[in-house]
Amino acid sequence: MGERQEAMRLELRRGVLVLAVLTALRSEQYGYSLRKALQAVGIDIEEGTLYPLVRRLESYGLLASRWSAAEGRKRRYYQISSRGEDALTMLNLEWQRLSESIHQITETVK
Amino acid sequence: MGERQEAMRLELRRGVLVLAVLTALRSEQYGYSLRKALQAVGIDIEEGTLYPLVRRLESYGLLASRWSAAEGRKRRYYQISSRGEDALTMLNLEWQRLSESIHQITETVK
Repeated sequence: MGERQEAMRLELRRGVLVLAVLTALRSEQYGYSLRKALQAVGIDIEEGTLYPLVRRLESYGLLASRWSAAEGRKRRYYQISSRGEDALTMLNLEWQRLSESIHQITETVK
Repeated sequence: MGERQEAMRLELRRGVLVLAVLTALRSEQYGYSLRKALQAVGIDIEEGTLYPLVRRLESYGLLASRWSAAEGRKRRYYQISSRGEDALTMLNLEWQRLSESIHQITETVK
């Protein structure tokens, strides 16, 4: 794949990642378990991309976090906040609209 | 909607626009008719966003264009190129993968 095609693919993916992360964090997760939950649905995202994204979403007030020492290891757990739920509702709506638009235009010109 | 929510919505939309434009241009269109075709499927995009995007896709070799004087007005018509078809195939595949991932993760955590 050429560089530009790869850039377009990543741009398409980037917007969807926030939706995926907010959705996944309706269940409380720590960094590694979140990454595994995303991988399980086919979204393979590097730590260097995922963790800064999670911290950014927390800084926006869309996630809440707490430290917990399960099995003797201190971990930071993240979960969606009520403001995050609002954002997720909006993103889901936009996603459904876009899906419908893409479906329609594909049917129109084929 | 807050500024950040709006930024996230636009980011989600941005990646999808290239997919929508390439799909629409499997039929030859000029600027205004392309804009109308996108509006008809619910994608309302300003000229100041759409036309630079079309020119960028042409500069990448993903669109071909020609001048034509229909009804006495010179217009530039755009259509997807064979390289554009390759890119569209790839983007459609990525879109399907992402749709499936979002569907799965939504089912997992609800």
